[in-house]
Amino acid sequence: MSLRVLALCGGIGGAKLALGLHTVLPPGHLTVVANTGDDFEHLGLCISPDVDTVLYTLAGIANPQTGWGRAEETWHFMAELERVGGPTWFQLGDKDLATHVERTRRLRSGERLHEIIDDFSRRFGIAGTVVLPMSNDSVRTIVHADQGNLGFQDYFVARRCAPIVQRISYQRAEQAHAAGTVLQQLAESHFDAVIICPSNPYLSIQPLLAIPEWHSALQHSPAPVIAISPIIAGNAVKGPTAKIMRELGVDVSAVAVARHYDELIDGFVVDEADANCMAQLTVRALATRTLMQTLADKQSLAQQVLQFAATLR
Amino acid sequence: MSLRVLALCGGIGGAKLALGLHTVLPPGHLTVVANTGDDFEHLGLCISPDVDTVLYTLAGIANPQTGWGRAEETWHFMAELERVGGPTWFQLGDKDLATHVERTRRLRSGERLHEIIDDFSRRFGIAGTVVLPMSNDSVRTIVHADQGNLGFQDYFVARRCAPIVQRISYQRAEQAHAAGTVLQQLAESHFDAVIICPSNPYLSIQPLLAIPEWHSALQHSPAPVIAISPIIAGNAVKGPTAKIMRELGVDVSAVAVARHYDELIDGFVVDEADANCMAQLTVRALATRTLMQTLADKQSLAQQVLQFAATLR
Repeated sequence: MSLRVLALCGGIGGAKLALGLHTVLPPGHLTVVANTGDDFEHLGLCISPDVDTVLYTLAGIANPQTGWGRAEETWHFMAELERVGGPTWFQLGDKDLATHVERTRRLRSGERLHEIIDDFSRRFGIAGTVVLPMSNDSVRTIVHADQGNLGFQDYFVARRCAPIVQRISYQRAEQAHAAGTVLQQLAESHFDAVIICPSNPYLSIQPLLAIPEWHSALQHSPAPVIAISPIIAGNAVKGPTAKIMRELGVDVSAVAVARHYDELIDGFVVDEADANCMAQLTVRALATRTLMQTLADKQSLAQQVLQFAATLR
Repeated sequence: MSLRVLALCGGIGGAKLALGLHTVLPPGHLTVVANTGDDFEHLGLCISPDVDTVLYTLAGIANPQTGWGRAEETWHFMAELERVGGPTWFQLGDKDLATHVERTRRLRSGERLHEIIDDFSRRFGIAGTVVLPMSNDSVRTIVHADQGNLGFQDYFVARRCAPIVQRISYQRAEQAHAAGTVLQQLAESHFDAVIICPSNPYLSIQPLLAIPEWHSALQHSPAPVIAISPIIAGNAVKGPTAKIMRELGVDVSAVAVARHYDELIDGFVVDEADANCMAQLTVRALATRTLMQTLADKQSLAQQVLQFAATLR
């Protein structure tokens, strides 16, 4: 299947499908755009968790147990940081740290984030696929919760998603722009399909959709837009998606995810466990196995989604 | 020997005697002031090489092979920094890095360097001895050489002391002040002796002496000031001291070091190999074994210097 694909994703869950697509598509056929709403500054370092998860995953150097961080990581820096009284709530492995230190150095010397990511991608040996941040501009996801207005990492890591979410906002999204030339490519029919990976719709995909030119570009996309439900049989595979949906008063179901993406999507993929909900959808739908445990699972879902996308062109 | 001692030093060589003094003096009797003219910003981090060498040495966690950096260090950060294209001319071990990251974080949050060092010292388990930077203000040693005006680390690390030194200056020393209350303590006879460790006179001690209030305080010190020659039999134990003296047109000898400190010192310690030069000195002098290879050597020299200091009170 040689479609040219634009994939949008957050971290761990979305990166799994991105890896599936990366391994089944021919070189030059995939662009992955990662959420940067989770980005933050910590210890003076500019950290881009989702971008790094995508880079590490596609390069085959991600920690296979956690899904984030580096494989065969060591923690000597962190142990010593604790010894000298530094903040330890955000884990930074010795190898991972180099990515943050060098990104920060380059950003401060004037390089743009998407240029840095592109160079890192090459240096990590990711061949044939382009990885882009959703924006070079600072967009920050704020979780408005019972414990106050929390930066994403404060909510997600420091407080382990315990606060009850009332609302989520995306600081400075209104003024932000897409990085690189991806929107021009989309408008000029460079892509045959846009795939919204099974990431958290509120925390991982919405920061991008909150950027007006991204929203408009997807709305007017000449290529079909397909989303994959991160909700399987009323629950999330991983992370706080289901908890947040409940707290926001949304039904925890694949149908609710499809309604969330609403007029932006032309196709929707649900897990085979949710095949019976397809009648409630107003877009073309595919039911297939969406749980990705092995590389074969990721490749199989990628193939299924690509075949589905081909029928929507 | 229970003198109360103020020791001034640079990095590796000076820190050896500081360790000797630390282990032979009773708790509460030693204050070590380290050079900060070598400090620099690298990768966005505030690095204080001499202060850290003193801390690591007194804490017993310094690398015994190199004299700088941490014992049992690992280099995963550095290897990955190279992989992502970062600058690798300055080696930063995984453990050592935590010191720089946390110092930088605290400096940027408004803590003063001497407070940070004091806390690090406590956390590293250095009991009974106070470690101070010579100043909280930024003083920068500039090496004016045939290859241009070089920052210290550029000269020392990046160019491995190869450039021919014409002159050395100490940027912003005129405006700098001593850190903490050490000068008040010195004036109020809190110390029984001031010991200038066998560090490089030009690169490690002169940055402090270039600070007017330090120079004046030593000149008017109620306690005797004793310097130990880093030159033994016409050569330096380690580092570029002899090379620099030659390039500056100074005789490479213990006598020349004594003349350099001139009116500031009341006593001078030379190696037993240089005993025959004592007649040329205008201050009281002691000849003893000054080469410090083992901990016993360091303790022995410390004892010798303390006994000599007691005779000068």
